[in-house]
This record gives sequence, C-alpha cells and structure tokens, in this order.
Amino acid sequence: MRSVLFGANAPMSTLAGPAGYSLPLSPSGAAAMITPPPWHFAGDVIMVDYRVDPDVARRFLPPELDLGDDPGAAAAVFADWQWCSDSGAELAEPARCQFTEFLILLACEYRGRPLARCPYAWVDSAVPMVRGWVQGMPKQFGEIHQTRPRTVGRAGPRPGGPGRYDGTLSVHGKRVAEATVRPDRRAGEPPALHAVPLVHTRFFPGWVESEEPVRQLVTSRVTDVEFGEIRTGPAELSLFDTVDADFPGLVPKETGAGYVFSYAETLCGGQEL
Amino acid sequence: MRSVLFGANAPMSTLAGPAGYSLPLSPSGAAAMITPPPWHFAGDVIMVDYRVDPDVARRFLPPELDLGDDPGAAAAVFADWQWCSDSGAELAEPARCQFTEFLILLACEYRGRPLARCPYAWVDSAVPMVRGWVQGMPKQFGEIHQTRPRTVGRAGPRPGGPGRYDGTLSVHGKRVAEATVRPDRRAGEPPALHAVPLVHTRFFPGWVESEEPVRQLVTSRVTDVEFGEIRTGPAELSLFDTVDADFPGLVPKETGAGYVFSYAETLCGGQEL
Amino acid sequence: MRSVLFGANAPMSTLAGPAGYSLPLSPSGAAAMITPPPWHFAGDVIMVDYRVDPDVARRFLPPELDLGDDPGAAAAVFADWQWCSDSGAELAEPARCQFTEFLILLACEYRGRPLARCPYAWVDSAVPMVRGWVQGMPKQFGEIHQTRPRTVGRAGPRPGGPGRYDGTLSVHGKRVAEATVRPDRRAGEPPALHAVPLVHTRFFPGWVESEEPVRQLVTSRVTDVEFGEIRTGPAELSLFDTVDADFPGLVPKETGAGYVFSYAETLCGGQEL
Amino acid sequence: MRSVLFGANAPMSTLAGPAGYSLPLSPSGAAAMITPPPWHFAGDVIMVDYRVDPDVARRFLPPELDLGDDPGAAAAVFADWQWCSDSGAELAEPARCQFTEFLILLACEYRGRPLARCPYAWVDSAVPMVRGWVQGMPKQFGEIHQTRPRTVGRAGPRPGGPGRYDGTLSVHGKRVAEATVRPDRRAGEPPALHAVPLVHTRFFPGWVESEEPVRQLVTSRVTDVEFGEIRTGPAELSLFDTVDADFPGLVPKETGAGYVFSYAETLCGGQEL
Repeated sequence: MRSVLFGANAPMSTLAGPAGYSLPLSPSGAAAMITPPPWHFAGDVIMVDYRVDPDVARRFLPPELDLGDDPGAAAAVFADWQWCSDSGAELAEPARCQFTEFLILLACEYRGRPLARCPYAWVDSAVPMVRGWVQGMPKQFGEIHQTRPRTVGRAGPRPGGPGRYDGTLSVHGKRVAEATVRPDRRAGEPPALHAVPLVHTRFFPGWVESEEPVRQLVTSRVTDVEFGEIRTGPAELSLFDTVDADFPGLVPKETGAGYVFSYAETLCGGQEL
Repeated sequence: MRSVLFGANAPMSTLAGPAGYSLPLSPSGAAAMITPPPWHFAGDVIMVDYRVDPDVARRFLPPELDLGDDPGAAAAVFADWQWCSDSGAELAEPARCQFTEFLILLACEYRGRPLARCPYAWVDSAVPMVRGWVQGMPKQFGEIHQTRPRTVGRAGPRPGGPGRYDGTLSVHGKRVAEATVRPDRRAGEPPALHAVPLVHTRFFPGWVESEEPVRQLVTSRVTDVEFGEIRTGPAELSLFDTVDADFPGLVPKETGAGYVFSYAETLCGGQEL
Repeated sequence: MRSVLFGANAPMSTLAGPAGYSLPLSPSGAAAMITPPPWHFAGDVIMVDYRVDPDVARRFLPPELDLGDDPGAAAAVFADWQWCSDSGAELAEPARCQFTEFLILLACEYRGRPLARCPYAWVDSAVPMVRGWVQGMPKQFGEIHQTRPRTVGRAGPRPGGPGRYDGTLSVHGKRVAEATVRPDRRAGEPPALHAVPLVHTRFFPGWVESEEPVRQLVTSRVTDVEFGEIRTGPAELSLFDTVDADFPGLVPKETGAGYVFSYAETLCGGQEL
Repeated sequence: MRSVLFGANAPMSTLAGPAGYSLPLSPSGAAAMITPPPWHFAGDVIMVDYRVDPDVARRFLPPELDLGDDPGAAAAVFADWQWCSDSGAELAEPARCQFTEFLILLACEYRGRPLARCPYAWVDSAVPMVRGWVQGMPKQFGEIHQTRPRTVGRAGPRPGGPGRYDGTLSVHGKRVAEATVRPDRRAGEPPALHAVPLVHTRFFPGWVESEEPVRQLVTSRVTDVEFGEIRTGPAELSLFDTVDADFPGLVPKETGAGYVFSYAETLCGGQEL
C-alpha cells in the first residue's frame, strides 16, 4: 500500500496537488471534513455500570487483550457534547459543534494495564462519526437523547439535585437502548470504565485486489481531563435485540450503579499499544 | 359550524365515540397527540433586541392592536426547551420532552396594555408545533441550534461567565437567522419583550364550502414564571431573505442588546382580549 | 367564538390586518404555511388489506357512523407523494413537494353509504401534517419508507413486474409498522378501502376558558382521481405496540391481499356529512 | 503501519478475535457497518454539464492527473439511489437501501486516459458516506432532493415526457446547489462525464505519532452498467458560496446541457492507477 506524505499533525501537504487533514482534499486544504487534532470536548454524561456474560465479552476483544480482573464489567454511556478545534471556530456554528453519543464499554486489560473496549458506538452527526473511524472507534449513526438538568421550573431535575435522568438510543427507526439514573448522592470517584483509557482497533477495509485492511491496536492520547461533580444512584438499563446478530450477547446480566456528571477532555492523537 | 362537547380542560368526552384533547381521537383518549394544559416549560434563552421599520411592523398587527409607545421595537429569541404535562410523564422520554424554538417578537399594545406579537415562529418538533396552532402561535418547522454553556472544559462558555452564545435557524435547507450574544454583565431586569404577554390570533382555515375560518385574538394564561440570572451584552443579528415575500420587512434596522438566561413558565390556557 | 372573514377558497383578507389561508398571517398573505386548495397529489402506494376486531373498530368510530356490512375490514397504506397547488410552484423545490405517509383505514358506513375512517396517520413533513388537521385527518410525525421500483439494475423490482415491496413506519425512534407485498398479477379493481371516500372529524381543541372544541364530521371533495396499473399478491403486515394504549386494538387479526399502484387525486375541500 | 489479515473480498477473519468487513468488529462479523462488495446500485439521475475555470480545476487534481483535452469540463449530478449487496437483504428495509447523492465531477486524464474526478460529494445517509471513504470518494453529509417523475396526475413530469426536473442540495442548513433540467429530446449517448471511470484518492489520516496518512490513487471496478432512456434539454445550475474557502472556485462559468436518466451499476472493488 502506498502510504505517503504527512503526519497526523500536519494539516496540509506541501506537495503539488490538493491537500487536507482528511477528504475532501482541496487546493488550500479548507475543504477537509475533519480538522486536525487536538479536539476539545465538553459534555454531560449519563452512565450505567452493568455486567455482561464474560464469555461473550471475551469474543469482542482482539487477541492482544484479555478480560482482566473484573471479567464481564461493562457500562452504557450517553453523552451530550460540544467540541471545538484549537481555534474554537466551530463554536460559532452550534449545529456543527454539538453532537450526542452512546457507547458500550467493556472492561479489559493489555498486559495487566486496565483499559476499556468500545464494541459499539453511535453518534448523531457525520463529523464525529468519521473522526471516530480515524481513531478506531466504531461509530455508527443513531438518534441519542438524554435528560438535561434545568436550573428553573418543573420540567427537569436541578443540576446537582435529585430527580431522574433518562437516555435513549434509536437506530434505523428502532429503539436500541434505554437507561434511567436516579442520582441520590455524590460519588467518591469516577465510574471505573470512565477512568481508564479506551483501546481501539483502527480498521480500514482494503479496496484494491488482494489488499489487506489496515488494522492497528491503539489508545488515545488525552489531556486536560476535567470532571464536574459526579453524582450516583440506582439505575435501570435495557438493551434491545434490534441491531445485529452479535449485539444481544451484550445485554445486561445485572445492572449496577448509575452516574451523572459533566466531563471534558482534549484528544491529541493516538499511540500504538 | 357545529361546535360541541367539552371545554379546554376536559381531556376526554363522555359521549359515545372516540375522544381526546386533540386528534387522533381514540376509545380512551390515549391517542391524542396533544396532552391538555397545563404545560410546564423550562429552557435556556438567547435573545437579541432589535428594531424594525414601524410601518412594516404595523402591517403585521391585527386591527385591534397598535404599535404602542415604542414603535418598531422587536426581538429575536432562540430557546432550548424541556417540557412536561402535570404528570411529568413526558420527561421519561427525552426525545419527546425537548425541542428548540426561534421567535420574532414585535412590541404592540391593546388599549394601552403593552403586549408582544409573534409574526413568525419555528420549532424542531411536531407536538410543540401543533400545540402552537392550538393557541394561535404561528409555529412552523425549522432547525434551531444554540450554544450551550458548559461547566467544564474549553468547548463552550461557563454558565454566568463571559464568552459567546450563538443561535442559528435554518428552514427548508436555507439559513434564515443568525445571532451572537457576548454577555458581559448582569442585567437589572428581563428584556422588555420577554416581560409582557404574547397576543396571538387563533386561526383555523375553513374547510367546508362557505365556511369562515376561526379567528380569535387571545393572550395566554401563564403562571409560575421563573427567571435564572439574566446576563446581557453586545449582540449581532442577521435575518436572511429566504422565507417568503413578507419576511424581509422584519430584518433589523438596528441591533440592540443581547441577553442570555434560563426561563420557566407554566402555560394554563388562553383568554380572549 | 368570533369567527369571521373569508371562506375556504379566499386566500387573503380584504380587511385591514395581516392575512393568509393559514398561520402565519402576514401583510400580503405570503407567509401562510398552507396554500389554499385545490391541492394536486400524485404518488406510489403500497397497501395491505387486513382485519381487526370489529368491537375495537366500532369504538374508533364517532356515533354517527357504523361498521357497515363488512365489520372489521381494515387496511394499512404506505404512500410516497409529490404534491402541488394549482400554480405548480411547489414542484420547483423537491424538498417541499415530496412527503411520505402511512395510514390505517377502517371500513364504516354513514346511513348505508360506504366510507373509510382513518384512526391513525403519520407523515414525514410539517406542511402535510398541518394540512391534515385542517381537514380532520389525524396526522402525526413519523418516518415512512417504502420500496421504489427501478427500471434498471438489480436493486429493486421492475415497475409492473414481480418482486417484493416493503414499507416501514417508525415513530419517535420506535418501529410501528412493517409490511411486505409480493405482487404477482394485475388486480381487477382498486382495493375496497381506497375506492370509498374518507370521513374525518375536524377537531380543534378549545383554548379560552369554557370554550368547546370545534368538532365536525366531514368528507373530502376529490376530483381527477387516477389509478395506474394496480398489481396485487400475497402480503404480510405487522403493527407493533409502540404507540399508545389504544393502538394495539388495531393490530391484524388476519392479513389479506396486498396492492401496489400509482395514484393521483385533487383535493378541493370538504363537505359536512 | 501494521496491516494484516484479510483481503478486500474476505468478509471475516479466521483469526481469533472479532471480525468484519468494516468496523464495528464483532464475534461473527455481523456487526460490520459496511457489507463487502459487490454493491448493486439502481437510481434516477439529474445531471448538468457546466464549465469551471480550468486553472482552478487543475488545483483540485492530484499531480498524477492532468486536465486532458477539454480543460474545465465539469458536471453536477443529483442521484436518488436504491442499493443492495449480493444477497439483496438490504432491500427488505427501504430506509437502509435508499439514499440520495450530489456530486461535482471534473474532466481529467491519466496518461491520456479520460477520467472524472469528484472533488465534492454529499449523501444523506451514513452507510454510503463511509463506503465512499473506503473507496476514496469524499462523501460528506447533506440533504439532497430531486423531482421524481410520476406516471399519474399533475404533480410531476411524466417519465420520458417533457416537464422540469429540479435538484437541490443543502449542507448544515445552508443551500449549496440548485439545478433545473427541462428535457425536450432523447440524447444520443450518455453525458461525457458519466461515461468515464471515476478516479479517487483513498486517503485516511494518520493517527499515531509520525504516522503518514494512507494515500492511494484508484479507479473503481464496475460491472453491469445499465442506462435507461437518456433525455436531454436546457439546464440551469447554481452553486452557492456556503461550503468552504475552496468551493467557490468551482462555480459555473457557463452552463451546458442537462440530462435525466435512470442508471444502474455494480461496484466490485478498486484498482490502483
């Protein structure tokens, strides 16, 4: 495979010919759908710890990873994001800097190092979806909605107060996930699967005859992690058999605590395991 | 016109036949698209005061209203709502209890009583749209997005702090409105056009031969008004000629202050002027 | 209730004050969301005859109607429409002149006259939704998709040939209806419930204290009905319990023939029964 | 870059670990967002020939390509597709097998071989978007709508007859392209830029430190090309400056003929130039 030109942080080619951090390539590089990292994210998260069948979880892991010391630990994560590049330019167009996301996370380890594996992810916007594929995150398209706390009135819980937080995911017009969290106290620390790095398989299908796909195990380089107050309480989680033949293997065997918190990070790039 | 049965707060008929507060009528009334008031709203508002040509504003007013003592005063309002009925049941389904809205407001008076007239309104969801028509609010379908403050990270302004708040409206794939507010201080009181009642014309086209349309001038009965901290600062506002032949008459002659605040109210019903 | 001004076919008031066939009212009437009838429709239809519990069907009928001589006859209809006003102006903007629709129809009679009652309807676009309410059709918002025949290639059935036609309806991110029709022969005549007039209840909730809702039983005045070749064959139909407490009463007890055809009509207005 | 495992036509790994033609990888491969080629497409096309500034066109070409003997020849293409894999399984879910597309094409040559270069492409659905990136087609997300011919009624042109066909593209709530074609005669042959292969740059950004992006010039292996009747006539085309700083370089200097036709092809894979 020919593989040339510029590194991850070089937004534009110095060669003749159109350039850009991603497709579409164009004379100045301005057409690129994806801006180069770092990308700054700030969002509100509703998260539910749960447990899956460890045998199934293992079959979702690449051979380099194992289940670690808490086999079957999993989580479902709803997030309502705002993001921007270093310039902050995207913030001027709210439709482009906002997206919602749903993830499933599985506990795993690489040579004893605790990590989280994301077998399924959905977002409601194209730029975060493609940006996910750049880093190996298997993002597909879905409709994700979640309760927003309100500082006034009766239509929603007060930030930091009691009340219920709901999240829903629908894909292709079918309901896939529903969660409810009723936070009733402050959590001492972040939920376990939100406190370890994600490990992804970057994977691009081959296209020309006999070409092998790109396949690369990576973690992300993340800085400026910031948590708001983390509140926790009882939770409910349902995953429905409306996705594919493998998805039902990840339905909850048991549901644990729920969490509600704000979270920010800066994503700088990847590194091979 | 036959006009029978039950009052505004009676959700269901006692007659034989299907019932409901609105269409679709069904045996138990459970199919009704609209639940009966009261409706509780809590949202985040980005608002810009501006001025239109008073002669144009007058032509948007029904004959019972006049421009009052500040002819040409207008405002553009972006709002990000969560709502529920008295039971709160809608809150369990975030996709159904959230919507976004854009309004234009014109200052007016009825017999010396200051009011606001809404010549154009857009929402991104069907239930609020039809509910608007029930009360005479001329809601159409649009895509509205606005900056959300973030309590962590770099991707958005801190609640109560400086920064920029943007709002955009697109309708049928064309940009209609853009606003930017840079709040830099606390406002002493709510923006004028958010502090007076709205006056709407309930209007349902006739359908059977020679039937006259329903036409009724009303204000809303609102309780439990609550404002969060109101912040104000310089603003920009653009309205584009992409709607209809009358819309360009309402573009800004001058742009005034901008406001950012949270707001809640309960809408109980209407009353004739 | 004040009820003044102009008849169903008068698009604009001669009074002082803003005008229009519908909200929004504006100086010239140009802002109206709905254009006055006649409206010309041309579409592709996938339809499945089925049977419901007659006792349930009766409870969906207003007292003026009865079940007639085929109690429990019902149909599910998917349609892919293009429409325009007399001027044809809407056709220049394909996003605005196209919509998709799903209906349930129940056989009924008014004093021996066979009619069809539509207890539920969904469309994917706001103008047809509001236009439905003008005429008493209980249209809500949904995502409707259906197979399009293709004159070339392998990805779809040939017009007039064999193959399968599928239709799906999702509402609020949940699947509501699925149908498959495998036409294998020409039908002698249109399906029964597509050959009789629809009877609707125009119904607008009251708003001011003690106001009664508008409630009026009407049929539509339709001209220029045109059918393309009607093909028929075996069909499957599933309705899911994802709508409301009354909807499950209308699930199929038995599924009959399916139909695929093109259809056009002009809708001119309504008439009281 | 590690690059292992299986070729373009091997849908599933025999290694331990999750597999699939694309992300998401899963135990059986069933979760893959993209099914392996061949992919069968059948659609309706509205196309307008136009001319751009040749100097700008050249700057959109990679250095291996030149403008050929008709510098500045370009086309805008609207298409309304249905697609399926070899099994045809996707056709049972119309929402998943249908998508709309807008392309800009530029005439170019590789060592004297006439080709077409696609600097910009938009689709309305996630699977075709990612599949575009697999093959180097720079697909982004947009709303594309186009006139559908109707065999009955007044709301649309008759297939094979006169009338107007319109296409529109909006991206991020702004209008980007509008075209109108008024076919008045049969065309002798397909439009030039629809009769030559597309040449794409497969391009995946690097991610780990110092990694170079994948960059590969390819054409597609296409079989089973089928054209329906091709009709041609006068056309209009507008491209608006609402995309990025490079896009305005491709606005029409001159607009040529328009075309309306049905088209099918099977896409089997790629080959390096």
